[in-house]
Amino acid sequence: MSDFCPQRFKKIFPLLCLSESEGKPLIYFDNAATTQKPQNVIDATSNYYLNCNANVHRSSHQLSRSATALFEKSRVDAQRFINASSEQEIVWTKGTTEAINIVAQCYGSVFLSKDDEILLSHSEHHANIVPWQEVAKRTGAKIRVLPLTSDGKIDTDNLSTYISPKTAIVACTLISNTVGKVNDINGIVKAARNVGAKILVDAAQAVAHIKIDVQSLDCDFLVYSGHKMFGPTGIGVLFGKRELLMKMPPYQFGGEMIKNVSFSGTTYGELPFKFESGTPNISAVLGLSAAIKFVEEYREQFVQYERALTEYCFKQLNQIPNLTLLFTDIPDIPVFSFIIDEHHNQDIASFLDTNNIAVRAGHHCAMPLMEYLSLDGCIRVSLAPYNTRAEVDSLINVLNQYLTQELRTTVDETSALEDINHRFEKAKGWDGRHREIMMLGKSLSRMPKSLRGEDNLIQGCESDVWLQGQVDGVNHWHFQTDSDAKVIRGLLVIILSAFENKSSEQILDFDIEGYFEQLGLIQHLSPSRGSGVRSIVARIIQIVAESES
Amino acid sequence: MSDFCPQRFKKIFPLLCLSESEGKPLIYFDNAATTQKPQNVIDATSNYYLNCNANVHRSSHQLSRSATALFEKSRVDAQRFINASSEQEIVWTKGTTEAINIVAQCYGSVFLSKDDEILLSHSEHHANIVPWQEVAKRTGAKIRVLPLTSDGKIDTDNLSTYISPKTAIVACTLISNTVGKVNDINGIVKAARNVGAKILVDAAQAVAHIKIDVQSLDCDFLVYSGHKMFGPTGIGVLFGKRELLMKMPPYQFGGEMIKNVSFSGTTYGELPFKFESGTPNISAVLGLSAAIKFVEEYREQFVQYERALTEYCFKQLNQIPNLTLLFTDIPDIPVFSFIIDEHHNQDIASFLDTNNIAVRAGHHCAMPLMEYLSLDGCIRVSLAPYNTRAEVDSLINVLNQYLTQELRTTVDETSALEDINHRFEKAKGWDGRHREIMMLGKSLSRMPKSLRGEDNLIQGCESDVWLQGQVDGVNHWHFQTDSDAKVIRGLLVIILSAFENKSSEQILDFDIEGYFEQLGLIQHLSPSRGSGVRSIVARIIQIVAESES
Repeated sequence: MSDFCPQRFKKIFPLLCLSESEGKPLIYFDNAATTQKPQNVIDATSNYYLNCNANVHRSSHQLSRSATALFEKSRVDAQRFINASSEQEIVWTKGTTEAINIVAQCYGSVFLSKDDEILLSHSEHHANIVPWQEVAKRTGAKIRVLPLTSDGKIDTDNLSTYISPKTAIVACTLISNTVGKVNDINGIVKAARNVGAKILVDAAQAVAHIKIDVQSLDCDFLVYSGHKMFGPTGIGVLFGKRELLMKMPPYQFGGEMIKNVSFSGTTYGELPFKFESGTPNISAVLGLSAAIKFVEEYREQFVQYERALTEYCFKQLNQIPNLTLLFTDIPDIPVFSFIIDEHHNQDIASFLDTNNIAVRAGHHCAMPLMEYLSLDGCIRVSLAPYNTRAEVDSLINVLNQYLTQELRTTVDETSALEDINHRFEKAKGWDGRHREIMMLGKSLSRMPKSLRGEDNLIQGCESDVWLQGQVDGVNHWHFQTDSDAKVIRGLLVIILSAFENKSSEQILDFDIEGYFEQLGLIQHLSPSRGSGVRSIVARIIQIVAESES
Repeated sequence: MSDFCPQRFKKIFPLLCLSESEGKPLIYFDNAATTQKPQNVIDATSNYYLNCNANVHRSSHQLSRSATALFEKSRVDAQRFINASSEQEIVWTKGTTEAINIVAQCYGSVFLSKDDEILLSHSEHHANIVPWQEVAKRTGAKIRVLPLTSDGKIDTDNLSTYISPKTAIVACTLISNTVGKVNDINGIVKAARNVGAKILVDAAQAVAHIKIDVQSLDCDFLVYSGHKMFGPTGIGVLFGKRELLMKMPPYQFGGEMIKNVSFSGTTYGELPFKFESGTPNISAVLGLSAAIKFVEEYREQFVQYERALTEYCFKQLNQIPNLTLLFTDIPDIPVFSFIIDEHHNQDIASFLDTNNIAVRAGHHCAMPLMEYLSLDGCIRVSLAPYNTRAEVDSLINVLNQYLTQELRTTVDETSALEDINHRFEKAKGWDGRHREIMMLGKSLSRMPKSLRGEDNLIQGCESDVWLQGQVDGVNHWHFQTDSDAKVIRGLLVIILSAFENKSSEQILDFDIEGYFEQLGLIQHLSPSRGSGVRSIVARIIQIVAESES
């Protein structure tokens, strides 16, 4: 066993330390969305601005030379990190999504035609589906989809059914952001090679957890983002085999990627600059280089720890009654997706959040996987090496508490503004306010199913809301509304307390932000797609404003 | 006169303070390439990682809600900054180049056809030329180019010659990065409106200097980058009128920009998210918001100061003998482009650099403007409000010193490794080493013009190099080489001292990095396109390696 100490490791992450020092230790279990950043990464991005801020490649003064040298040294780090054979094979991108878009547009749309097939899997992230749907639309190529095994891996038993000489490209995730299993990319590559297909590997979820070697994988393209491996936002890598990148046209056009520009014609520069037009994200490149060195330094130490933590969390989650993991087998990295019978994902996530445990509820940008599993969504708990067994214990305790809690069942029918104000004045802390929201939710009469259709739908990432408004004889508004999540039903009651039975003028004049602020709920009006509370308010305003115009 | 104090203003920029505290105050006159960053911008980007690092829009836990709220508040800042009528009209991009590429691809390539014309000007940056050349290639539309007046502005006297019902889009810079004049966009918009053409304004060079109001400009698209207005790298803004953005297809495909994904079909999300797939550059968005507030706070104070500084610098530069400004009129912002008769731009820039004055030499990503003016390139001195009259005086002094300097005319013929080592051991400081390089340059015999062709050319941004290698009877290599810049000829002598009359094996084994390091010249091996010294070494290695294989 390694002598890796998660508590010591955690100390390198200032945000986590801060939450502890403030006495409200955050249990951050949303690492598959983005990881926290160690001090050296934060420093590397600022140090660029503090010490050598200049544009790269363009000038030859000292500052620019230093910046360029660091910038290109970072490329060598990125090359070593995935064992590419040349730094010309490393293209800086905004992130995984842009990287896949480059391959789809500059390889897919250029070299595929209507008899070709694009092979994806049911566990792909939207970023590895939608660009290919666009390629299919442009070229006439067809998309085929690999099934999954019962343990959530891409099924490679019947590859010959899916991979044929028609297969032009296979684009698969190394580890799905929802399943957490290492797919058998080697098997897929072998089958694809036999028919001359190209292979793109989405390594966004993998890079923080396992060592990647593009030469031994023998893939044609591999993509990842910095922000999911302790690096900064706004930076990612497209690895492409040199001969493929060479024959692909440029992606964006502008400075840096050119050799010669004139109105009579333009010639393009060499690799990798052909794909890097414009001033690059220099500070983030330097930050990613720091993140790469960070992972290289710690990975061997934390890999065993992560494994043990995965086993522990898997065992503990399995003991929660009515909790169903999407796949019964233990995942390869600490990513756990589950549902709890008869409880809405957002209600669970919201209760955990109230207890300072950050998880994600929803479709995880993997709607087709949800469809495949006949689910609306799920809860995802994703861990990093700074997470601990004690934190897993807290999660389990809070989940049990959620399941056994006895909310007061008597609900006052009153939900006038003054009553709600009064309730929230008395409510203590975030926890108390959450309880009030949940109770208010019980007072909302459910909307008839016939009205919960597409027309009245406001779609959030984690839950859905239905809303309909009508004016009565004295020009006052009445709304019918509902949500599949209890917490949202509570928030709907609060919103309606401000808008129900009011005139258009009163509604349009009302300071809803101020009201939410006063109740201590302003954060719920964040423009997050998650709950969509702000969208509900916007929809009401829109309905009312349109009736006036 | 305002009470703006440049010295006090400068103190907000840590990099400039650092260089002063180290006793080597940097005179940074390369602001048109990128500005330095104030402390509040650097802090805003780090504070995101320190205090609220989470992915935006996707989750509804507290950290994510806070991040999303700050992220969307920043959009409102960006909206206010250019007086857009809705935050839905603000799309975050990597920078100006990406923003123009989005318009070119999602508007130009979609809505233009072969009878249409795209109108540009001779003073555009490559980023506002090459994307349109691509649109022209794809759609068959023709590019027409507006001429310039003698003072460098886009000539709007004969707009009717260029703008006709065929004109589909006019894409012009508000202020050219080389000319520094405010173009008459209002006049162009009026003419374009008359024929129903759309207008894109490149405001990359303008935003740091003048207030922009997209509603009063009445343009359809306006683009700018954060890093040229004291903001971070990797972030920029595309403003587009709502009705146009609505009808444009998405640019990149992935998470965030979708409403629904399934293998049977995908629907796209609303504005502006339709154009923002993938995890955005959250920290840079927050940094740009800080930069916007910074400019809003200081602009009124520094605008008068900048004007006075522009007048002063213009007057002083005009007193340098043989210095010719590209345009005789005073620029509107402190951007000065000039050449000095019989002196290569890179030699001047290199001498200034030795004296800690950072300017840029070359084509400034405006090759067509250079072609229009029949120039190979020029020196550009671009100032910001932290620059001072004293710094301008230093520039003038160093330029005069450069022009009157008497380099020793006796040059030793010896340029063996040992001699060069010896020379550089004795050379004191950067200044002394620079002098040695310049002297060595004199010993390089010029290459016949017949050999200075395309085949032997290694093109840098600031200067060109020609190189040819041959093997003699005893398998030793002999190189003929030359450059149009003296400083590069000096560096060529140093490179040849290592490689001339050596066997392939000796050349391939030689540690050129170590050699340059020993001479104190390692920065010259930075992979900058500026001088291209590293490319010269790479070319030699390539020639030798290919002969071996």
